[in-house]
This record gives sequence, structure tokens and C-alpha cells, in this order.
Amino acid sequence: MSVLQYTEISNISSDKINILGRTGKKRQPLPVFFNGGGVEVVVTGSELWIDLETDSDVNEMWVALEINGAFIARQMLLPGEHSLCLFRSMEKTTPKRVRLYRELQAMNDDPKVKLLFKGFKHDGEFQNVPVYSRKLEFIGDSITSGEGSYGAFDDVDWIPMYMSASANYATMTAKALNADYHLVSQGGWGVFCGWDNDVRHNLPSVYEKVCGLAKGEMNEELGAQEEYDFASWQPDAIIVNLGTNDVTSFNQPEFLNPDDGKTYKMRTNTDGTRNREDELKIVSAIIDFLTMLRKHNPNAQIIWSYGMLGSDLNLVITEGINKYKENAGDEKVSFFQLPNTTMENFGSHMHPGPKSHQNAAKELVDYLRNKLGWFE
Amino acid sequence: MSVLQYTEISNISSDKINILGRTGKKRQPLPVFFNGGGVEVVVTGSELWIDLETDSDVNEMWVALEINGAFIARQMLLPGEHSLCLFRSMEKTTPKRVRLYRELQAMNDDPKVKLLFKGFKHDGEFQNVPVYSRKLEFIGDSITSGEGSYGAFDDVDWIPMYMSASANYATMTAKALNADYHLVSQGGWGVFCGWDNDVRHNLPSVYEKVCGLAKGEMNEELGAQEEYDFASWQPDAIIVNLGTNDVTSFNQPEFLNPDDGKTYKMRTNTDGTRNREDELKIVSAIIDFLTMLRKHNPNAQIIWSYGMLGSDLNLVITEGINKYKENAGDEKVSFFQLPNTTMENFGSHMHPGPKSHQNAAKELVDYLRNKLGWFE
Amino acid sequence: MSVLQYTEISNISSDKINILGRTGKKRQPLPVFFNGGGVEVVVTGSELWIDLETDSDVNEMWVALEINGAFIARQMLLPGEHSLCLFRSMEKTTPKRVRLYRELQAMNDDPKVKLLFKGFKHDGEFQNVPVYSRKLEFIGDSITSGEGSYGAFDDVDWIPMYMSASANYATMTAKALNADYHLVSQGGWGVFCGWDNDVRHNLPSVYEKVCGLAKGEMNEELGAQEEYDFASWQPDAIIVNLGTNDVTSFNQPEFLNPDDGKTYKMRTNTDGTRNREDELKIVSAIIDFLTMLRKHNPNAQIIWSYGMLGSDLNLVITEGINKYKENAGDEKVSFFQLPNTTMENFGSHMHPGPKSHQNAAKELVDYLRNKLGWFE
Amino acid sequence: MSVLQYTEISNISSDKINILGRTGKKRQPLPVFFNGGGVEVVVTGSELWIDLETDSDVNEMWVALEINGAFIARQMLLPGEHSLCLFRSMEKTTPKRVRLYRELQAMNDDPKVKLLFKGFKHDGEFQNVPVYSRKLEFIGDSITSGEGSYGAFDDVDWIPMYMSASANYATMTAKALNADYHLVSQGGWGVFCGWDNDVRHNLPSVYEKVCGLAKGEMNEELGAQEEYDFASWQPDAIIVNLGTNDVTSFNQPEFLNPDDGKTYKMRTNTDGTRNREDELKIVSAIIDFLTMLRKHNPNAQIIWSYGMLGSDLNLVITEGINKYKENAGDEKVSFFQLPNTTMENFGSHMHPGPKSHQNAAKELVDYLRNKLGWFE
Repeated sequence: MSVLQYTEISNISSDKINILGRTGKKRQPLPVFFNGGGVEVVVTGSELWIDLETDSDVNEMWVALEINGAFIARQMLLPGEHSLCLFRSMEKTTPKRVRLYRELQAMNDDPKVKLLFKGFKHDGEFQNVPVYSRKLEFIGDSITSGEGSYGAFDDVDWIPMYMSASANYATMTAKALNADYHLVSQGGWGVFCGWDNDVRHNLPSVYEKVCGLAKGEMNEELGAQEEYDFASWQPDAIIVNLGTNDVTSFNQPEFLNPDDGKTYKMRTNTDGTRNREDELKIVSAIIDFLTMLRKHNPNAQIIWSYGMLGSDLNLVITEGINKYKENAGDEKVSFFQLPNTTMENFGSHMHPGPKSHQNAAKELVDYLRNKLGWFE
Repeated sequence: MSVLQYTEISNISSDKINILGRTGKKRQPLPVFFNGGGVEVVVTGSELWIDLETDSDVNEMWVALEINGAFIARQMLLPGEHSLCLFRSMEKTTPKRVRLYRELQAMNDDPKVKLLFKGFKHDGEFQNVPVYSRKLEFIGDSITSGEGSYGAFDDVDWIPMYMSASANYATMTAKALNADYHLVSQGGWGVFCGWDNDVRHNLPSVYEKVCGLAKGEMNEELGAQEEYDFASWQPDAIIVNLGTNDVTSFNQPEFLNPDDGKTYKMRTNTDGTRNREDELKIVSAIIDFLTMLRKHNPNAQIIWSYGMLGSDLNLVITEGINKYKENAGDEKVSFFQLPNTTMENFGSHMHPGPKSHQNAAKELVDYLRNKLGWFE
Repeated sequence: MSVLQYTEISNISSDKINILGRTGKKRQPLPVFFNGGGVEVVVTGSELWIDLETDSDVNEMWVALEINGAFIARQMLLPGEHSLCLFRSMEKTTPKRVRLYRELQAMNDDPKVKLLFKGFKHDGEFQNVPVYSRKLEFIGDSITSGEGSYGAFDDVDWIPMYMSASANYATMTAKALNADYHLVSQGGWGVFCGWDNDVRHNLPSVYEKVCGLAKGEMNEELGAQEEYDFASWQPDAIIVNLGTNDVTSFNQPEFLNPDDGKTYKMRTNTDGTRNREDELKIVSAIIDFLTMLRKHNPNAQIIWSYGMLGSDLNLVITEGINKYKENAGDEKVSFFQLPNTTMENFGSHMHPGPKSHQNAAKELVDYLRNKLGWFE
Repeated sequence: MSVLQYTEISNISSDKINILGRTGKKRQPLPVFFNGGGVEVVVTGSELWIDLETDSDVNEMWVALEINGAFIARQMLLPGEHSLCLFRSMEKTTPKRVRLYRELQAMNDDPKVKLLFKGFKHDGEFQNVPVYSRKLEFIGDSITSGEGSYGAFDDVDWIPMYMSASANYATMTAKALNADYHLVSQGGWGVFCGWDNDVRHNLPSVYEKVCGLAKGEMNEELGAQEEYDFASWQPDAIIVNLGTNDVTSFNQPEFLNPDDGKTYKMRTNTDGTRNREDELKIVSAIIDFLTMLRKHNPNAQIIWSYGMLGSDLNLVITEGINKYKENAGDEKVSFFQLPNTTMENFGSHMHPGPKSHQNAAKELVDYLRNKLGWFE
């Protein structure tokens, strides 16, 4: 074994490391807030280690490793300091492209969860990393958090093990298009309310912070609650995959909001159809969210991409988009339905499995190529 | 060879023959107006022939044959009287389920085109045919006419040979769901106007006749221009696959309508986006068409199903649907996007090939199963 | 419609027509003896017709049509003179590549069966046809005759309708490799004996004639029983797909040969295994057949390719090949197993369906590319 | 977190643990010698940990985790004592079926490599494990060691990271058939000699020991060099996937054997064909190995299954099998060719990738179902 040198993340020049996923200003240690977040380096040398720190309570951290674009490893990381060997015994002079990224979504429920990347131990040199001229932002719910993308069909526990960025349509789409990407997602949340009528659980409420989902003092110190600097990373397209929980709320009991002591419920009519007033709350939330997205991303194509767990909300979503378009005179917003998950393609707890994510990515890649003129 | 008996179509009792496709009252000879139209019988005996008559000018007739659900033959039929052997030398006592159907769409351009089924020659008995408790109506353009579903990628002639019901998502969908189905479609037409800005070329204008597309005296005598008796066949779901030509019209030259001497053009703005006034013409046409469909089909689920050649009109279509819904208080109308045709799945002249039709059928079948509760 | 000109087959110069399939010297009319046999031309003009003549008793003729490499039509042809329109109303100046070929195998049982191509009616010019520098010969049984490649799973009649060259691994293989090909096959036959222990039903006994399978005076006049001129068409590879019937014979009753009044039976031992003496008859037949093939095809790679309906005879076949190799010192003979037909890929009467033929073709193409260095 | 109880492997009764892979008598700690080796338990409780110990030099250990049959994790294990959390925060009363197994082949080159399973920490109860009434043994080379089943197409390092049991046709086959299985394999080895003409590298030489591949004092203490107790585990079928390296040796330089100071080389003739004497060495090795296999496994179906990296040795292998059959009068031996790896299905360093392993498993499963009558 060679003698290893230690290099802090912040001491690697920006042309020699790609920071994956949305981050704030903090670089040392580097907080990794979202699934799909992490680092990419290209190194020579026979081995490479990463030093990182994790914490969590019930929901432990998971990470995945890719080398030269191929999936290599995926493992649980319990609370503590870790030094992970990413590769060893490899030919020294050949550059290896290495990605280590978070599998677990930002955990709104668990303020102890953290993942900090500190530095690399290596016996080679950092080389220039690929420059991704294309940028995609995905905003979503459990689907975009990769819930159920691992696990057996009958598994119903709600645990980190079943979530991923590695078997996720967003990652697959970005990879196929050779694009950098950010994920901002939370299982159970919607554009207006959560699956359980919890009106606090809407993505717009957290979108403008670095990681509005990550609560508590520790996350605050890591910069999660700072205003996100949208100018630092302007996506070519924003894919909003929300609506699946909003539509579920109509068939769930009312929710007592502990914050205001009031109960909330999206209502159905006696014939089983959705109460129109409540539909219009979603419509309004969509209009407001599109307005917010456009404010921060003046040039992005905004694509509402929905349908992997049913397309029941198509007309409500497009009503919102159409009203936004009419109000704002904004032509760079579109609707694209994703293919539904059929029985043979479910993963665990009735969420899309890997094949469903592949199907969605395939169609979304085709759509983005055409929409953005990304043909080569 | 056995001695064959001749039975006229009209002499076969209705439980022993399924008339496929939309027809009027005429049964002898039976006019077959649409692709997918034809007959289904279940017969014993060693052989079966059908007597039919065709006429045409430039656009000759094509038919396809299925036996026991399997594709067997497909051939051109030039003008004249034909006696086609459908099978022979088969085991006499075994019942065979036979479908012979038209591959060529109703030919609006060619009033000479006709296909008349007269009777069967057979040495067995007609048995009870399957009773299809499910009914689907497809209304569409060239995609539903199966244009390009046969032929090589480079073929660009616009000829009957390349159209079909046999390699067609509508047929595949109906077969997968064990449903009877009607097709009403015309290549190049839209919900508001044709691909070339011809405002006469909209499906709503012909929907209420038996086969409003079939012009001329001969077709009139066959009953094509009679009011269609909607009560005679009420679909469970209507699938409207229109919009592909409407959206194309924006990028085509103006059209001089010989009927009124005026020119028509769907306009684009200087930035390439669509003129809003012209978009609203499509929106209005959609509202009106949905109103017409509902009038004639009070209980059908109406599904606008679009996207096999791009989904650029999604928001205009859903705007129309949403406005119709709001006006009419009609909850049984929905929007379902079909998968786009990708490069490897094109058939001839840049239309969906068989694999694209299969992909569309697969997703549409899943949607219909869920929407209509057709699970077994 | 243009005025059509008539050109006899024999008046088309050899650079302007490809005769498909094994033939003798007769060119006018052109006898088409085998499935896959027929003609290929490249013509301009708006339409093209072929004049042909058929005869048959129980087993009627079937043909298939390809234009520019795409399947277009497939139909039954009853006894008589036919003038078939192959295309019409096409753009006059564009050359169209047209293949019309026989779907029905050579019919050993039915000496009346014939298919004669006489000439074309056309309003364009014959152009140079593709020159196929690669040549493949397939020798087989019902699999190579495409039995069951059409028809429903439950269909069990043994009739021409279910046989094909159009949904056949041999055609698919040749097309993928851009090769000319000959088929010599007969359902139920083996390398030593037929499925029913009929020892007369072995392909070697007919291989050296133009079409040794076609019996009777009529076929004799057409040249079927002449010695085949092997020098006229030397394949790069011979694919022998025999053994499926030989192995079946062990589990069938004895056969009384009307020619010599003797009974024949491939025997099994009391434990169900095959009688060794009888296995050795197959081994000998293989040695003899390989010797015959080599004699007539001195440079061809000979590939015994077997396995689409089970691979039970692998060791007997390879025993024969190995003994032949040892005796002859011939290194250009190999064994390649084809993928078995699994339940979901059966066609009719428990024969390979189209998907099974595709699977076999895919693997055989890969093998041939590697074996023959055909990489582009 | 619950209080965890520790249970040694050897204290779990045999109906509550499945030992995966070939082992000797030692149970505490449990040495895991081969890829695919490991343990399976079914436990209740909210969490489960395994204590294990590893050692290695250049070639570190890798393990994979399955829960309820689904792939969950895969990671490197550097030398030392490890306590791995296999799951946590799960519903306590639901039984979870857990498999942890070795990804890395037995390492003949590296006597330091070890993997010892010691015990579980758990807060639930061990329940009865599935009883696998079917048993399969796979004997192979790098293909069966899963070389290249992970990693990018261009990766050429020869390191543990790229080997697996998790993306391996043997594992897939056993899973599809609900069978227990043993793997005995070594990259680069053959039935007669290794790819580099090293005549010591033949699987028969190590087959009769528990793990003849594992050298050195440490492994000896673990029981690797003991005679394997074949009576303890009699497979229904033995799949021998050898020959790929034997055939490669003909095109490699001579090998100087340090053990006897002699050079070895499988020779080619001047025309590029294989030297017959050297072919016969392979034939003899096959005969001898089949004899050895039969001696220890009197009732097993022995299937030589070869072809995932070309089938050039088909005739030599079948010559060996046929001669063995003839000598031994053994009818329970067969040859089954596996599908070749085509360009789109390679993994890393020109070895079969996951899709190629899937293809092989699919065909092998079909073959085994038919051969062994395993139809449900």
C-alpha cells in the first residue's frame, strides 16, 4: 500500500471536483443535504478514501458509489466518523472518475440526520472533472426520493434502506443527458399539502432555502436554512414531479395541525368526485409555485412531469399551469406525463421499482432532448 | 373439397356474427366504412370463403385476416367482386373464430372507395360469437388510421399499403381488454383544422353521420351520410386522439378554402410561440366537441389521449377540457398522454411503427383498466 | 393509371433480378420450389404487377411481399393463373426494392403443388439489384419450414397457413447479415429418419437434386429432380438444423415402410434411455451427410445449429460431427446450439413462434459474424 | 433502539439458519470460502447485526446483502473485525428473510483472504428458514466468479470490486428455481489448464477438498484443505462451466511452471487450427473430471454448460463427454450451450455483464426445469 496523502474538500480547486446536489456556501466540511448530493472527482493513484461524518437517530444514512459511471457499492452508514475506501489496488496512472452520493432524502422528520464530506486520502493526483454544461433540477415527493426503488414487493416499512438516488429516474435522466442535476424532494409532501392533509407539507415552503427540509440547530449551522443562492446554479430545465400526495389527501382523514390547532381536509363530494373548492387550492398552489420558480430561474424551461403513480390530477395540474401561463404570459412552462407504474414494475411498498424509474427516464430523456434541442 | 353453402350476411342471426366497426342500418350487402370495420364469425367446417365487392380509384382497398386471434393474412383488393378463401383444409368439427377487417381508413378524398361484405361460403355451421360487454370508441387522425404502421422507414408515399387496423394501438388496446371497438379517424385532420390549415378537416364535422367522411352518391346510398344511431352502440369509453394536426398547422402555409374563397392560417408570434387567438380556436373546438360527444354518449368516460407524435399541445388540449368541465359540470372526462414515438420506433413516413403502437396500447390498457375498473 | 409493359422473368438481365432460393436451370416460367424462394427486383414506376401460376390440391400456396425490406402483405393463392399487384400509386421516379417469396415449404406429400413466376407488368424500369456477396444455406425440418410461425397457440391443424419464410429465423438471419440464402427443409424429416420412424424421410436423400422433395411428373418437368448444380451457388456457410425429428422417433410407434414392407423403429431401453445401436444410426447419417455437404461445398463453413425445440440430441449430433472431423480432417465444421422455445414464445401447434425465431436469429447472427468475420 | 442479544452462528439450530455455499465442518466462526457463500436467516425484531472478521492483502473482501429476496447493499470489507448492521428500524413482529453472502471468489493467489461469520446481534427471534429441496452445484471459471459483472466497459483492472455472486447467472438460476446452490470457481482456470498455459490451474485438482483453492496455514486451520464430505450435500444437478480458459491457452505464450521447471503450451497448427494432441489433453481432462464428479455425486445430472464467452470448444467438450459416456455407460450427463455475450451485454474487462448473466440464467433455468422435471 502506498503512502496516502490527505486533501480537504475545500482544498480541491473547483475544476477538480464536482459538488453534486444543492448546497449552500459551506465547503468544509461539505454538508450533503439531498439524495443525489455528493462529490465527483477524477483521480489517478492506486487507492482512494473519503473521510466523512454522519449522524442520525432512527433514519440512518445510506450512500452509493459509482466508478467510471458504473454502480459499484451501496451501504448503510451509522452515526460517527467514517473513512471509506472507495477503491484500491487499481492501476496507478489511469484516471478513475468516482462519484459518492447520498441515497437518503433530506429528512424533514429527523433533525439529527447529517452527512458531512471532509476530505480524501489518496496516492494520486486530482485531475480535471467533467464540465456539465447542462443542468436539471428535479422537485418532487417520494418518487423523486426513490422510495421503494430498493426492497421486495411486500416490504412496507418506511425506512432509508428503500430510498435511493441510484435507482432513480432523476439520476438516470441526468446521466443519459450528461447533465448535472439537483434534487429537492420529500416523501409524502405535495405542492399544496401532504398525503395526510398536513398543509405544512408542501415543497414550495422549503424551496427557497438551501435545504428548508433540514430542521434544527445543527442543520441551521450547516447553512440549511439560509436563502439559497439561485444565481449560483441556474438550471436549463426544472422538472416538477408533484401532485401524487395532493391527490391522495382527498381520500384521507382530516389532519389536526399542531401549529395552529385547526383541522384540514381535502374534501370529496357525495358522488366521490373531488370538492371543487379544494381542487382550486391546489390550482392556486401551482400558480404560486410556478411564479416562485420563475422568479428564481428566469430562463429555465419548467416542466411539470407527473404520472408515475397514476395521472388522476392531470387536469388540476394543467389548470394551474394554464392559469399561470395566462397570468404571467410565460411560454416556457409545459406539462409532460410520465408513464404509470404497472404491477410488474412496482418496487417496495407500492412505489415505483427500478424498471418503472427506467421507463420514466426513457420518456423524459426523449422529451428533454426535443424540448431543449439536446440531440447529440 | 366439400360442397359449400352460401349464407348472406343478413341471414346470419345477430348472435352468430359480430359486425365490427361503426355501421348504419344497411346489412345486405354490409358496407364497411372504417379501418377496423368488418365481421367476426365462429364456424365449424373445413373451409370458409367470403364474398365481397370493392371499388376504388387511386386508393385501393386492403384487408387483414385473423383466425383465433392470430394475424394470418393481409392483402390488397382491387376493384371488383372477390371471393376470398379465409381458410381451408381444417379439421371440420373444431370451431374457428375468424375476423376479416378493413385496413384502409375511410377515404374522404376518394368517393369511389367502397368495401361491401356480401356473404360466406362454408361447409360448417355458424356458432355463437363472443359477446363483448366492453365497448371502446377511438376518434383520431393518421395515427388512429395506422398510417406508417407498415412500410420501411424511408417510405414517404401516402398510399393505402402503409395504413392499417392490424398494427394499430386501437386494435391492440381493444384486443387486450377483450372489447368491441369503433374507429372514426382521418389522416391529416384535427379537432379544429387539418395539418395544412384546411378548416374543413375537423373530425367533429363528420362525427354525427354514420360515416361523414365517405362522400358521393354511392356512399350516400350505402347510408354513410345518415345520422348515426348513437343509441345502438354506447361505448364505455371514448378515446379522442386528436391534436397532432392542429398543432402542425401553425407551421404550415395559409390555406385557401375553395368552398368560401377565404384563406386560413394558424399563426405564430414573432418569437415562434403560438398566436393566442388561434390557440383559443382549438380550445373552443375542443369544448364544442366534448359537448357533442357527451350529448350522444351520456355515460361514456371521455379520454383525450394524445402524444404519440409529440405532446406540444398538452396545455391547449387540457385548457379546452378544463373549460368544458367547468361549464358542463362533467366529471367523466380526463386527459391521458400517450408515449411519444422515439427514433427506433418509427414506421414509414415518420409515423408510429408497430412498436410505438404497442407501447401506446400498453399504457392505454393500464389506464383504462384503472379508470373503468376492468381488472380481470 | 399508366400503360403497363410486360416483361418476362427470363428477359430481365441477371444484374436486374435476384432469383431467391435454390433453383435449377429453368427460368421461364421460373419454378419456385422452396419457402423463401422467389424474386427480388428494384423498379421505378408507379405500379408493379407479377404474373404467376399456382396449382395445388389440399395444400394451397401462400406468398409474402416485402417492399424496401418491410413486410407488406401475405396471402393465400389458390390454383390458377394470378396477376398480383405488388404496388401502385407510388412516386414514379423513386426505385422500390420488391421481394415476393414463397411462404409454403416444398411439399413432399403433394405433387400437384407448384408456383411459377412468369413476368412483371410495370410502368417503370428495372434497375440494378443489390449484389449479395454473402451466401447462406439452411437445411432443416419444420422449424426451418416456419411451421407454427403463424397461428394461435391452440391451433393444431397441419396446413400451409401456419408455415412461412416471413417469420422465420433463416430469413431474419440472412436479412441481418445482408446475405442471399437458400432453404432446403421439410417438416417432420430428419437427418436419419422422420419423427414417425419413416426412414425415407431424411434430408440427405433429397439434397443433391434441385428439389428432391418435389415429386411427380410435373415437378420433374420443372427440373426438380435434376442434379443440382452446386457450382452455381457456393454458400459461405451451411446451417444444418436437423435432429428434432430424429430424436422424436424414439418415442413413436414403429413405422411400416410401404416401399419395402419392413417396419422401422428407433428403440428405447427399458430405463427410457435411447438404444445405442439406434443412436449410432443417427451418428452414421450425420457423418455421411457432412461428407456429402463437404463434397459439394468445398469451402463452406458447416454449422450444425440445433436446439429450438429442445437440445436432447446435442451429444449424438456432436458425436457424429466429431467422428466426421476425425475421419475427414475437416476443421471447417462446428456445432452451435440455438436457444430453446420457451412457453411464452411458442407459435401454433407447439412450434416456435415469431419471438422464438427472432431469438434464434439474434444468436445465430452473432455466431456467424464471429465465425465468418462478418463484422460490419 | 432495543437491547440486542448476541447469538453465535453455531448456537442457531440448523432449521433456523441456512449455510450458503460449500463449507467444511467448522461452524464457529463459520468460514465462508466461495462467492455466493454466506448465511440466510429469518428473524423478527427491529434490527439485526452480524459480527464477522475479514483479512486480506491486495484483494479485499466484498459482501452483498439481500432482504426478502431483494438486493439491498454491497460493500467492501477491509481487514479486521466488523459488526455490520443488516437492517434497523423495521416493524418488530414481521419476519425478515436476510441473506448476507460473499461477492469475492475464493482467492487462490492470496492466502491471507478470509471471511469468518461469528454471530448475530438481534432483538427478535430466529424463525424457521426455507427448506430448499433442490440443490445445484456450479463449477466454473471467471464467469462463475462473476468477473466483470460490476464495473464500466473500459475497466480492465483485475480486482475484487468487479467480481460478484449478486449479478451472477448461478445465483439468478438458483433463485429462479428456488434452489440451494454451491459455487466452486476460479478466474483464469480451466478443466485442463489456465488461460496462460499454467497446467496447475485446473478445477479438478481442487474439487475434492472443502476449498482446495484456499492455500496457506490459516486456511488449512479453517478446514479448507480437508476432504470435502460429498455425502453431506448431494446436488440434483452439477453445472460445469469450464473451457473458456482452456481454449484461450492455445493463443497464449508458453508457461514456465515453477513447480517442475518445465514449460507448457497448448499448440496451434500452422493453419491456425488447434494441435490435435493438445486438444486430446482437454478431452482426457474432461473424461477424468466427469469420472470424479460421478464418483462423488452418484445421482446428479451433470450438465456441461458453456458458451458465455464464445463456443469454440463445443466439439472438444462434447468429444470428452461422449467418450466418458461411452466408457462409463453414464446417461445422466449432458451438454447445454449458454448464450454468448454480445457487445451490448459486456460488463467490465470483456467479461459478461449483468444482462448477459440474466440471459444465461433464463436459458439455463428453462433447461433445468425440463431436464429435472422442475415445472412448478
